[in-house]
Amino acid sequence: MSMPDAMPLPGVGEELKQAKEIEDAEKYSFMATVTKAPKKQIQFADDMQEFTKFPTKTGRRSLSRSISQSSTDSYSSAASYTDSSDDEVSPREKQQTNSKGSSNFCVKNIKQAEFGRREIEIAEQDMSALISLRKRAQGEKPLAGAKIVGCTHITAQTAVLIETLCALGAQCRWSACNIYSTQNEVAAALAEAGVAVFAWKGESEDDFWWCIDRCVNMDGWQANMILDDGGDLTHWVYKKYPNVFKKIRGIVEESVTGVHRLYQLSKAGKLCVPAMNVNDSVTKQKFDNLYCCRESILDGLKRTTDVMFGGKQVVVCGYGEVGKGCCAALKALGAIVYITEIDPICALQACMDGFRVVKLNEVIRQVDVVITCTGNKNVVTREHLDRMKNSCIVCNMGHSNTEIDVGRLLNLSCSTVPTFVLSITATTQALALIELYNAPEGRYKQDVYLLPKKMDEYVASLHLPSFDAHLTELTDDQAKYLGLNKNGPFKPNYYRY
Amino acid sequence: MSMPDAMPLPGVGEELKQAKEIEDAEKYSFMATVTKAPKKQIQFADDMQEFTKFPTKTGRRSLSRSISQSSTDSYSSAASYTDSSDDEVSPREKQQTNSKGSSNFCVKNIKQAEFGRREIEIAEQDMSALISLRKRAQGEKPLAGAKIVGCTHITAQTAVLIETLCALGAQCRWSACNIYSTQNEVAAALAEAGVAVFAWKGESEDDFWWCIDRCVNMDGWQANMILDDGGDLTHWVYKKYPNVFKKIRGIVEESVTGVHRLYQLSKAGKLCVPAMNVNDSVTKQKFDNLYCCRESILDGLKRTTDVMFGGKQVVVCGYGEVGKGCCAALKALGAIVYITEIDPICALQACMDGFRVVKLNEVIRQVDVVITCTGNKNVVTREHLDRMKNSCIVCNMGHSNTEIDVGRLLNLSCSTVPTFVLSITATTQALALIELYNAPEGRYKQDVYLLPKKMDEYVASLHLPSFDAHLTELTDDQAKYLGLNKNGPFKPNYYRY
Amino acid sequence: MSMPDAMPLPGVGEELKQAKEIEDAEKYSFMATVTKAPKKQIQFADDMQEFTKFPTKTGRRSLSRSISQSSTDSYSSAASYTDSSDDEVSPREKQQTNSKGSSNFCVKNIKQAEFGRREIEIAEQDMSALISLRKRAQGEKPLAGAKIVGCTHITAQTAVLIETLCALGAQCRWSACNIYSTQNEVAAALAEAGVAVFAWKGESEDDFWWCIDRCVNMDGWQANMILDDGGDLTHWVYKKYPNVFKKIRGIVEESVTGVHRLYQLSKAGKLCVPAMNVNDSVTKQKFDNLYCCRESILDGLKRTTDVMFGGKQVVVCGYGEVGKGCCAALKALGAIVYITEIDPICALQACMDGFRVVKLNEVIRQVDVVITCTGNKNVVTREHLDRMKNSCIVCNMGHSNTEIDVGRLLNLSCSTVPTFVLSITATTQALALIELYNAPEGRYKQDVYLLPKKMDEYVASLHLPSFDAHLTELTDDQAKYLGLNKNGPFKPNYYRY
Amino acid sequence: MSMPDAMPLPGVGEELKQAKEIEDAEKYSFMATVTKAPKKQIQFADDMQEFTKFPTKTGRRSLSRSISQSSTDSYSSAASYTDSSDDEVSPREKQQTNSKGSSNFCVKNIKQAEFGRREIEIAEQDMSALISLRKRAQGEKPLAGAKIVGCTHITAQTAVLIETLCALGAQCRWSACNIYSTQNEVAAALAEAGVAVFAWKGESEDDFWWCIDRCVNMDGWQANMILDDGGDLTHWVYKKYPNVFKKIRGIVEESVTGVHRLYQLSKAGKLCVPAMNVNDSVTKQKFDNLYCCRESILDGLKRTTDVMFGGKQVVVCGYGEVGKGCCAALKALGAIVYITEIDPICALQACMDGFRVVKLNEVIRQVDVVITCTGNKNVVTREHLDRMKNSCIVCNMGHSNTEIDVGRLLNLSCSTVPTFVLSITATTQALALIELYNAPEGRYKQDVYLLPKKMDEYVASLHLPSFDAHLTELTDDQAKYLGLNKNGPFKPNYYRY
Repeated sequence: MSMPDAMPLPGVGEELKQAKEIEDAEKYSFMATVTKAPKKQIQFADDMQEFTKFPTKTGRRSLSRSISQSSTDSYSSAASYTDSSDDEVSPREKQQTNSKGSSNFCVKNIKQAEFGRREIEIAEQDMSALISLRKRAQGEKPLAGAKIVGCTHITAQTAVLIETLCALGAQCRWSACNIYSTQNEVAAALAEAGVAVFAWKGESEDDFWWCIDRCVNMDGWQANMILDDGGDLTHWVYKKYPNVFKKIRGIVEESVTGVHRLYQLSKAGKLCVPAMNVNDSVTKQKFDNLYCCRESILDGLKRTTDVMFGGKQVVVCGYGEVGKGCCAALKALGAIVYITEIDPICALQACMDGFRVVKLNEVIRQVDVVITCTGNKNVVTREHLDRMKNSCIVCNMGHSNTEIDVGRLLNLSCSTVPTFVLSITATTQALALIELYNAPEGRYKQDVYLLPKKMDEYVASLHLPSFDAHLTELTDDQAKYLGLNKNGPFKPNYYRY
Repeated sequence: MSMPDAMPLPGVGEELKQAKEIEDAEKYSFMATVTKAPKKQIQFADDMQEFTKFPTKTGRRSLSRSISQSSTDSYSSAASYTDSSDDEVSPREKQQTNSKGSSNFCVKNIKQAEFGRREIEIAEQDMSALISLRKRAQGEKPLAGAKIVGCTHITAQTAVLIETLCALGAQCRWSACNIYSTQNEVAAALAEAGVAVFAWKGESEDDFWWCIDRCVNMDGWQANMILDDGGDLTHWVYKKYPNVFKKIRGIVEESVTGVHRLYQLSKAGKLCVPAMNVNDSVTKQKFDNLYCCRESILDGLKRTTDVMFGGKQVVVCGYGEVGKGCCAALKALGAIVYITEIDPICALQACMDGFRVVKLNEVIRQVDVVITCTGNKNVVTREHLDRMKNSCIVCNMGHSNTEIDVGRLLNLSCSTVPTFVLSITATTQALALIELYNAPEGRYKQDVYLLPKKMDEYVASLHLPSFDAHLTELTDDQAKYLGLNKNGPFKPNYYRY
Repeated sequence: MSMPDAMPLPGVGEELKQAKEIEDAEKYSFMATVTKAPKKQIQFADDMQEFTKFPTKTGRRSLSRSISQSSTDSYSSAASYTDSSDDEVSPREKQQTNSKGSSNFCVKNIKQAEFGRREIEIAEQDMSALISLRKRAQGEKPLAGAKIVGCTHITAQTAVLIETLCALGAQCRWSACNIYSTQNEVAAALAEAGVAVFAWKGESEDDFWWCIDRCVNMDGWQANMILDDGGDLTHWVYKKYPNVFKKIRGIVEESVTGVHRLYQLSKAGKLCVPAMNVNDSVTKQKFDNLYCCRESILDGLKRTTDVMFGGKQVVVCGYGEVGKGCCAALKALGAIVYITEIDPICALQACMDGFRVVKLNEVIRQVDVVITCTGNKNVVTREHLDRMKNSCIVCNMGHSNTEIDVGRLLNLSCSTVPTFVLSITATTQALALIELYNAPEGRYKQDVYLLPKKMDEYVASLHLPSFDAHLTELTDDQAKYLGLNKNGPFKPNYYRY
Repeated sequence: MSMPDAMPLPGVGEELKQAKEIEDAEKYSFMATVTKAPKKQIQFADDMQEFTKFPTKTGRRSLSRSISQSSTDSYSSAASYTDSSDDEVSPREKQQTNSKGSSNFCVKNIKQAEFGRREIEIAEQDMSALISLRKRAQGEKPLAGAKIVGCTHITAQTAVLIETLCALGAQCRWSACNIYSTQNEVAAALAEAGVAVFAWKGESEDDFWWCIDRCVNMDGWQANMILDDGGDLTHWVYKKYPNVFKKIRGIVEESVTGVHRLYQLSKAGKLCVPAMNVNDSVTKQKFDNLYCCRESILDGLKRTTDVMFGGKQVVVCGYGEVGKGCCAALKALGAIVYITEIDPICALQACMDGFRVVKLNEVIRQVDVVITCTGNKNVVTREHLDRMKNSCIVCNMGHSNTEIDVGRLLNLSCSTVPTFVLSITATTQALALIELYNAPEGRYKQDVYLLPKKMDEYVASLHLPSFDAHLTELTDDQAKYLGLNKNGPFKPNYYRY
């Protein structure tokens, strides 16, 4: 997705978006199979055209399952969005009004609101942390006066976040961070509920920036907080409305790409407001990587290949959090797992966890499954592919689409992310906004901050009731003995969990 | 499915088929979810009509995944078979000829043969035991002279079995044991290869018996072996062509239902040939229950509900092989598992395996998932359902559709059986045929036999190469010390594995 | 231990006892290490003298830990029994009387009774099944009139069994089945409590048969039940007092050796009373093998070698119940485990459980630990030993002292058996006695029987309260549906658990 | 242990030593049992006298097993050191000379050198990382010119470290950091090999400081490096020979206590040389806590109580690294584990790992085992003890002797630390010395440093060959893509492993 011609901005936007596009597609997407053709001649070149575009179009859908898809076609249901019955008029051309008479939004079809509301209600069931936050903070309205401009995927889960922010006192204007990922019916439900949302599935690039612009540029309303996923919104404000930053109390950014951009700005001395990096909070990281992959590796492989795990020989490239999650699950289901590693500390962990650490060449001929989780490039090369057994499965669980040396061919998306995991992220974002908005003068400077450990702990504590988990409280005496505040934080910043 | 009017046979057939129909639907199908409606009013009655038919129509498809389905719609793709482009003429009306000029078959469309062949080739990849059997036994043709009449599901996996029997010297005539489960393209491929196959998807009941009859009743060809799955073929021969049994050397039966029927015949003194019960062979049982369920419980729950397993409280009713498989997988993925049991030995095993043994009432309010694997009825009652948490998942992994007290509503099929598991079954069937066909006079009488342990061991040994497993051989000295034959059997009959 | 000269009996006794001696030593003992000397010259021959006697002397002590040992020297504390302060007068020469004036016993020192009583009380804590049996059956006294002559190890755990039999109405006379294993203080406590016990640690062979004879041969008292562990008592009665069998209602035998002997008698048509093989009951087998070894492999290796398990490469020879237990534990602690097997079914199970199946030669150079659990001989040969890494640990978990080809050198005993496991065995014995004693005429003939499944289930049910496990009961309706009695048995005899 | 009268120094030494004494006793020691007396009257007061002294005397022995103990009495063998045959003359009074004529040492008995040498050789087998370091660095002698004064436990493992330092070019003078922990035969072997060692088991406090003084205060030799374990040596130099610091290039400190003291000095501006905190290196921490406790919890419980784990209900207080290790092992062996936590992040991890998070009160009546791993005090109170089941086991795995509210009664030591774990620590110390000694001017200031990640990785890499683990190397291209140096460090400092 390149910048629209009408709005020529320096290159940064373009590479930024490319990186984010890949991040969207691959963070939540991860696997594919390569089957040697009976004739042993792999025709990658021919297929590549077709597949290369695939992640772009459907990758995002894997963010989470929704009932707008039939339960039977969770990962290839491009069709379910095309909504062919819908007229082909651009939403920008339509005149729509919600039931309260407001037209302060732009969505595909306001009539889908009821359906979207039902999706949001279902999402709320697994996002009780946000509901709980609404209840706990509702009296004091910690976001009273906050005017938040947001740019994220617009899904049922995000809707629960947005409506939580509103419940805590904020006014919100929202656009989509991706031209394909919007659930139209959810956008409609938000519009019906009075949120100024500008997004639909299948935006053109011009639409994309127009929507962002509509969020920022409104007479008589000026944002004082930014919630961004990828940095496009932040970028737009920098380039077009730099004065807005005078009122902005802080930016909350979730994506790797966006965080990277913020650190660059900070290094260059150009960051003019505090920014919170919620991507690297402990809770979010553990759920995005270790816990989520422990489940999704099995799910993804079964959905796409129906492979039986018992007795299968598997090599997992990389023993970071993602690799650890994959290995734990595969070992438990009876697979024989080998590890490749470049980092001796992680390699030693693999040994102690009961896995043989090998070089890929040593096992490539014998394994039934190859899984990459490195973030590196060219981990599985063409040469490796040639030496594999027929019907060996190759699967990319990493964050980089270059781990396997055959283009982006193999990055299909075939698992879903449980709403509970998204709840962790959304709650982290909400708390980051509250923290930045309410922080006393001087606590945060023009720099990028990690979420304070205490808030990270608070995110975790809000999710414990789902497990009926009962936390023990320190006595005064114990707190004194340990030199801790009874309410946390309970660990030093360098603690490794 | 009742007997066709045209062929009035005593009641035994009907109840037999009903039992088999349930067995088909439920042996390989297992789970569903019950979500309390927001209004807490569960409208089972209304839905039941719709769901009750569901297993009948699609349950069998879960036997295994095939490429005739797009990989994206593994369990609800009735549509993919309807082949709407196909003309609606009954196969019985059509004149079809394969490329060698033979018309000795009746399938939906012989032109699908090439596609079916590709499915069979893919199945062969995971059924190397049968391929290996072809090679090992090809020289001696142990089934030379065998004329086998078979009645099973007609799928790519069965095709590998049938073609193995042919490669070993047998002549085969084949019909389908179920009116819905035939893969038309596979039947076409078999017909093209010269097998006398009479089957298509969507047979009427009259078609069903007509096909069986065409297999048995042929001038100049008389069967001397029967391979049956459910007992319909056996039943037909008993009722219509009892004289055929004079030449029959034996019956090989796979299903619980069919085996039950054979034991009844034996008890009544009416079994007039030896029969082999391959359903209860060790290898088959372990794979059908413990190993298969260990994988499918996770797969099925993810595909249908996307539930996150970590931290979930789950109660599993029944700690037999199926329950053991489910519990092992769930525990490994971080679920907290409770067991209910009626058998104190299994209950003690559950304790030693780290599970709390409770009565269902004790935990029903707190659990997130209820899984039944009892074979019993009314294990989860309406009263239990009323006391569950909202959005609790209820899942039937058992063999009985009565475990959950809401009719057959909850027996959907949402996982697939790996071809490797079907390979175990098919190899067992082939060996049972060889054994019965080649057994010296008098080894088998008119009774039902379990597969000799040595052959059970042989089935296992044929599947070891898939795992690159290297068996150790006894020395003469060791064999003597242990009082064993070097080639097995290695265990007494009562060994529990 | 050969037959005493004074009582020349045909050879059968001798070989019987040798087998039993090995069984005692090895069933409960299991591991050792072989460290290559720095000079790579292993001097097995020289050491063998010393070690060969070791199991004989201390092997039995591993039956269970008792407080007569300090908690610090659990497995080599021969000294603690030598009781050097004690006079060296043979118990047969001493005149001893218990506090009630009875002299109907022969023990080392009646004054140790109080200490022995405390040991028995501690054992009772983990044998609540027997205590529960006392309570349940006390009213009806199911063993009223039973006159039991017993010959077993005399330990605190056995004492709980004997006193349970008495509480249920039986009269008991007891001797030791092994010349070293008697806990003198426990024998004293039994004598003080009025049991006619004839046993002490360190009996001569003449003493051994004298004690047995004193149990059987008493004026005015004739046994009607036999409880035997090894067959020595049964053998004695056969040879010396065959007429006693006219009154005997049955024999209960626990050991492999004794059971083997009974089957031989039965085959030869010489078994003149019913006998119950309690060795092969499901519950006992699972606890003696799978569950017990799962824990003891770790314990034994740590106690003797302090080996760190994480990352260690281990080859386990044999994947039966013992091997399965060992492998599960080692895998869980981070070891990389290989399996050797001769039985393809067990080999396939190993594959499905995530272990590579290899021949010993393939891995012998690389492994850190070798564990044998085969029951076979010469599994690890001298050649294997020569090829091992320096400091490789070799450990025999099997029942045969010939698994490792260096004589009996490596059979040291370095773990203990939890009292709970012994409770399973003792309860099984008690129930077998009750069953045989109360069985209606004709239920049991002159043959060897397995414990009825219902009683096996009852043994299990008596142990469930220790785990606070709550069994579910069948409703009448469910029992009918399943065709089961509500009180069991719940499984067919061939069920594999 | 207070400061000797003859050398009055300000109080800091005393509290320092007390803390270190506790650290020694408890870091490597961890468990005990509390059994309710039959009469339910716990007589802690009476026993406490006896037990309180116990850890002081024998705690250190648990550092690792050595052959100077018989393999049968691994943890209570105070006797084995008393060496009663030895004369009672103080080593300070003796005139001893090694075989090369040197008297530059003071040990118990130089004649034990050969025995000590054998112990050292055995330790070398599991410390191949240090041997490898000798080989890799021997050519360049990175410690040529280094004059190291050391004060640590003097065991076979430490001897391997000291001799490695010598092999790398250093001169060493060594004393013991604890008056009880010296292995006399090892000290003799070091003395025989030419190391100036001043240490024996059972030093008086005056002896203790005299030995340290002999190391530091020698004409014509001035230390330029300090290796300390507890801070006593550092303290002594500060107080008595402050001028020595002018030549000191750095201090390497291993203990929590010593590190704490260094941070205090640094904060107070009194630290006059660079210091390296090796206690908190990633590799050492993981092995000291997670991996080591995963194995030692089972070992310690079995050795002291013979408890069967299967089916036991266990509550583990604290889910940090130690708690995680304990829980993983117990769950794997079939225990049912509950967690108490104060930190919501760790609590959420416990949930995801499959453990119920409870308050201690909720489960105290039902559990069979209580394990504390908190570092907190009064976690298990007298009230909890009163409510426990009879024969409940209470076990302290934490670093604090106050976790259980009954004084120091329960801190017995009943497991050993594998040499491999000590190898990690020793290698870390050696590398820290090399780094500090060779660092260019200005790299390290007068502050406390964590081991550079690259060296942490190097420690790990030196231990990989023990596992036959093969590390993958980055290509130039990959290193560039990742922005990493091909030789590491591979992770950012905040990486959590």
